[in-house]
Amino acid sequence: MNVQKQAAWIGMDLGGTNIKFGLVLANGTIHLQKKLDSEIPFGYKYVFDKIAGYTRELIHAAGSDFVVKGFGIGVPGLIDIKNQMLVEASNFPGWKNVKIGYELEKRLDFKVSVDNDANLAALGEYKFGAGRGVTEMLMVTLGSGVGSGLILNGAIYHGSRSAAGEFGHTIIQKDGPLCACGRRGCVEAFVGKYGIQRRIKELLVDYPRSILREIEPHNITPEDIYNAAVKGDKTALLLFQEVGESLGVGLGNVANLLNLERVVIGGGISNAGELIFKPARETLAQIAFKTNFETITLVPAHLGENAGLVGSACLAMQISEKF
Amino acid sequence: MNVQKQAAWIGMDLGGTNIKFGLVLANGTIHLQKKLDSEIPFGYKYVFDKIAGYTRELIHAAGSDFVVKGFGIGVPGLIDIKNQMLVEASNFPGWKNVKIGYELEKRLDFKVSVDNDANLAALGEYKFGAGRGVTEMLMVTLGSGVGSGLILNGAIYHGSRSAAGEFGHTIIQKDGPLCACGRRGCVEAFVGKYGIQRRIKELLVDYPRSILREIEPHNITPEDIYNAAVKGDKTALLLFQEVGESLGVGLGNVANLLNLERVVIGGGISNAGELIFKPARETLAQIAFKTNFETITLVPAHLGENAGLVGSACLAMQISEKF
Repeated sequence: MNVQKQAAWIGMDLGGTNIKFGLVLANGTIHLQKKLDSEIPFGYKYVFDKIAGYTRELIHAAGSDFVVKGFGIGVPGLIDIKNQMLVEASNFPGWKNVKIGYELEKRLDFKVSVDNDANLAALGEYKFGAGRGVTEMLMVTLGSGVGSGLILNGAIYHGSRSAAGEFGHTIIQKDGPLCACGRRGCVEAFVGKYGIQRRIKELLVDYPRSILREIEPHNITPEDIYNAAVKGDKTALLLFQEVGESLGVGLGNVANLLNLERVVIGGGISNAGELIFKPARETLAQIAFKTNFETITLVPAHLGENAGLVGSACLAMQISEKF
Repeated sequence: MNVQKQAAWIGMDLGGTNIKFGLVLANGTIHLQKKLDSEIPFGYKYVFDKIAGYTRELIHAAGSDFVVKGFGIGVPGLIDIKNQMLVEASNFPGWKNVKIGYELEKRLDFKVSVDNDANLAALGEYKFGAGRGVTEMLMVTLGSGVGSGLILNGAIYHGSRSAAGEFGHTIIQKDGPLCACGRRGCVEAFVGKYGIQRRIKELLVDYPRSILREIEPHNITPEDIYNAAVKGDKTALLLFQEVGESLGVGLGNVANLLNLERVVIGGGISNAGELIFKPARETLAQIAFKTNFETITLVPAHLGENAGLVGSACLAMQISEKF
């Protein structure tokens, strides 16, 4: 009996701590998924041998109904797209100028495609998530850092040397608070985890009745602030109002510069949802020109933690379509 | 005798005050050039009839050695590219939803192409000026306002509804000085003509010995400040230092977001040259990430007042290449 095999692509999100990977189907669904420690300090040869082994296991586990058409991988660093090479990554000590495409293709039997993880998360949301139906999109991930990826004219926008997309380190207050990056007044200094922790300490001086005072100031997390906000704590609500406003200024700048259609917001801090989104939209409305505001919508991400994995598979799909 | 005619394109910069137009050759040189009053308040029918007449005169004056292959026109407003229509323009009262392409093609015998004037100035510099040889470029025009146009992947970047390119109204200090647009802390509020005039008044309070004190504060122009700076006036030098630094913050943001290769700076205020460019580059070096800074160069415009005219002809060239 001649059964038609279903096309599938491997998507892999290679982080500093974990490797998330899976078999993704043409409609964007993840058929099988696995998580491993990434063990970056052991060096790339060790990591790629391990990846090759687990990839074969994954394909085996999927069974004979699938034919793997390609392998996409996202890495949190500067990628030389032409050479499919990781130039450097701050969380990958010792990994300099690693030809990821070449190294993985040596170990596996299919075409491997590499890009920056934030770009691929944007691509995932664009193809199968909250960015469907538009061609001009910014994906912002609010976490410890503020990551971002740009889709322009329906494709990842890399810039001249694949270093585009640093929305988190665009400056909205040139004499503003210090950012983890050393600059002053970056978007991240207002809406990233550390910026939030800095600001809540300041606010608690003025608002001694906040229930957040029960927590040691250095240990207050965005989740704590969210929980307090849900209980109606005014300080927590004010914090998210400010975070949303600052995000809105940064997004207003991008809206005016690029006339985008959609901003997709993900990452842990985005779980505060409308507490952030509402003031962000209101500020965006004030800052963006009329047409630029009318064009843009600000929505939560759909794919959650899997955006990078699905996006990596999307990259592999795009490449395999060319052959 | 069968003489090969030379291809030429009409480029036109339709401003609120003047119409600049000319016959542009394939190498970007302007063969013939003319300037008229634009007389916008007389309405678009009057203006287009006039344009058609003067265009025929121009072609006649050029003689029979040229064959006109197309007509490009730039307008300082929001353009609906698909319909080649001017949606609105703040300096063109009464001109709403004017189908410029259609109206001019009715009156002339060649294909007409329309775009925003700042986009076309960028295209002109990109093809035949200071942007040659790169594919990712921002053109900034420093004047009363701060205009800009983006070239990404070697083409004008329009964004979703052709409203991209408002670099002048990206915010670098969210609680900063009021901009003419009503926002606070826009790049234009620091580096545009009115921002400069506001700031020099402030500085003169602290620097009573400046030679600029001889001029009535409201009448001080950027040219006056430049002339004082050339004479070594410390207040004037400080002003340009600040202007350059603010410009550098704005450009650092764009460098980090888009990883551009070149920024081309034109407009009257850019005549201050290195007085602005040097602090701008120094600030850019501090703000842009290493790769983003290494990629980018900041240079003066080459085409001066003719960038829009040449760029309009470039647009016509691109369109005629398609047919």
